[in-house]
Amino acid sequence: MSQRAPASVGQRLEDVDTPALILDLPSFDKNQKTLFDLVKGRVRVRPHAKTHKCPEVGKRQIALGAVGLCCQKVSEAEAMVDGGIGDVLVSNEIVGAQKIERLAALSRRAKIGVCVDHAENLRAIAATGAKLDVYIEIDVGMRRCGVAPGEPAVALAKEIVKHAHLRFAGLQAYHGRAQHIRSMEERHAVIETAAQHVQHTKRLLKQAGIACPVVTGAGSGTFMLEVEAGAWDEIQPGSYAFMDADYAKNEWAAPLPRFEHALFVLSTVMSRPSASMAIVDAGLKASSVDSGMPTIWKRETLSYTHASDEHGWVEGKPAPALGDKLLLVPGHCDPTINLYDWYVCVRDGRVEALWPITARGAVT
Amino acid sequence: MSQRAPASVGQRLEDVDTPALILDLPSFDKNQKTLFDLVKGRVRVRPHAKTHKCPEVGKRQIALGAVGLCCQKVSEAEAMVDGGIGDVLVSNEIVGAQKIERLAALSRRAKIGVCVDHAENLRAIAATGAKLDVYIEIDVGMRRCGVAPGEPAVALAKEIVKHAHLRFAGLQAYHGRAQHIRSMEERHAVIETAAQHVQHTKRLLKQAGIACPVVTGAGSGTFMLEVEAGAWDEIQPGSYAFMDADYAKNEWAAPLPRFEHALFVLSTVMSRPSASMAIVDAGLKASSVDSGMPTIWKRETLSYTHASDEHGWVEGKPAPALGDKLLLVPGHCDPTINLYDWYVCVRDGRVEALWPITARGAVT
Repeated sequence: MSQRAPASVGQRLEDVDTPALILDLPSFDKNQKTLFDLVKGRVRVRPHAKTHKCPEVGKRQIALGAVGLCCQKVSEAEAMVDGGIGDVLVSNEIVGAQKIERLAALSRRAKIGVCVDHAENLRAIAATGAKLDVYIEIDVGMRRCGVAPGEPAVALAKEIVKHAHLRFAGLQAYHGRAQHIRSMEERHAVIETAAQHVQHTKRLLKQAGIACPVVTGAGSGTFMLEVEAGAWDEIQPGSYAFMDADYAKNEWAAPLPRFEHALFVLSTVMSRPSASMAIVDAGLKASSVDSGMPTIWKRETLSYTHASDEHGWVEGKPAPALGDKLLLVPGHCDPTINLYDWYVCVRDGRVEALWPITARGAVT
Repeated sequence: MSQRAPASVGQRLEDVDTPALILDLPSFDKNQKTLFDLVKGRVRVRPHAKTHKCPEVGKRQIALGAVGLCCQKVSEAEAMVDGGIGDVLVSNEIVGAQKIERLAALSRRAKIGVCVDHAENLRAIAATGAKLDVYIEIDVGMRRCGVAPGEPAVALAKEIVKHAHLRFAGLQAYHGRAQHIRSMEERHAVIETAAQHVQHTKRLLKQAGIACPVVTGAGSGTFMLEVEAGAWDEIQPGSYAFMDADYAKNEWAAPLPRFEHALFVLSTVMSRPSASMAIVDAGLKASSVDSGMPTIWKRETLSYTHASDEHGWVEGKPAPALGDKLLLVPGHCDPTINLYDWYVCVRDGRVEALWPITARGAVT
């Protein structure tokens, strides 16, 4: 059911059929270099494949020094292992007999880690006999999954170390909400508090005689704050390689770098109802609107004001002509990428490669 | 890149891996019967495949009397023709050389219609030499695509009839925004105005000596208003077979029937951070949130309060237990279906069939 590629190698960008998911390779490469250069020798990098869903991207991250990838779903991890990735941390709780069996099967093909936040779930995972790295997720302020920092984490670690085939690999400490806090100062304060929760938990683990090999977490909106806080060994950014319109609304200042927009949706003007209005062929099935509308690249007088399923309203003067192509910067990169089967990779105005998004739709 | 089916025929619903897109067949069948019984002998039905994206659904609609299907995209129409559908109206403008070539190629395999709202686009379509049914889209108040009603439509019709290989098939008159107006009275008023635009345009076409074979339009939220207004020959509902949480917020009263929820996302509780909070494994990549959060089926004390990419927050007491499965009613059926490769079709608690969603991701 995957769709045919909307482009061919060598084609000019303006000839690509629309809507198409465009990856600008010079900006993508620059974002990769910016991240890896910045943290080299300070923390390990384990980029998040929930964003890119693509082994081709993952292999390039590993070539730059990433220790492996993160995934949120077993099916996503399966797609990455199928694509040649040998080390995947499922940075999420995996609950349900079928998923746990698949996770166990995957651990016989690659180095696999998983998170836990509940003793019952840990017992179900242990019962498979699979050799797994097990991380305890602690809630550092996001109020989603995870045990409370401190004693509850130590109690769960004591359960993990009872199982010879499981390795207690450390703590998952990710503050997702912090990534999109606009002010640097507030983001900094939230990560400082998260760091205190991590340090407190590490101290208690040490007192209990349990080694904590790795603390992993952090995203594109905060990772240098985690690095500077000194409590993390590994970071998990995903969006940094692509950027989106929502991340662009953050305040960006040292120590965080400003990444470039590398991801676009190419769209065509399909109707021109008035002199100040154009309708494009990319609606909410082409660019996810959960974090706001896309913006229009390098056309400052135009705004994408709202979306229906297959249409987008572009307002402003002069309105682009019928058939004109516009590059949209998606509101939110992860769910937008998850709508497409292919990245159309472009350099110097030409299609250089087509990368299949093999984990698109990998929700289980 | 399509995902393996998350279920097998004969499996119990509670054993299906999650998240999964569940189609309750008794409710789906009932919704189909409700619609076709209600309009029988009054208007033709051409259901919209933009919602279901699935030839298996389309074939069942045609078996009940549908004259064909609608699509919004050429690639969607290709998937329907590949799946055995012989009559497709692309109820949208198709702009761009590649798309128009594909439309022309498709017209040699099936009866294909297309909409126009611009003379330049009409010339590009005519230049292919393809035998097509051409509809003029008129803007009946939605302010999206379409020419203004009246003279501009007549002027465009005069251009169409110059081309011997093109057949002027009639008017596309759809008011998308009206579908979600909550009050019956307001929806009624908006469709009354739309009907006046249609009647006015038909009179002018008649005066110009141009036959207008069919007026097509209408959706699940209004179609009986169009039927009773007497200006439409054909209706294009899509959501009626599935329903969603957004449509459920409409006021429903005669002449419109109340359709049943037939579409669900099955999810699993993957974390239990507190006695009044559960985290499910279905976030915004599993249920589109563009029209609001999903609701929780038959668990009135629980609310799905917000979503991140792979997680949903379920609040209320008593919170469901770790591993419990919940059926979510998606906020918006069309983009939710577009996230999945399979319908898991269920009857009496067992999986009866798996229908591939072959036009998922068909955006071009």
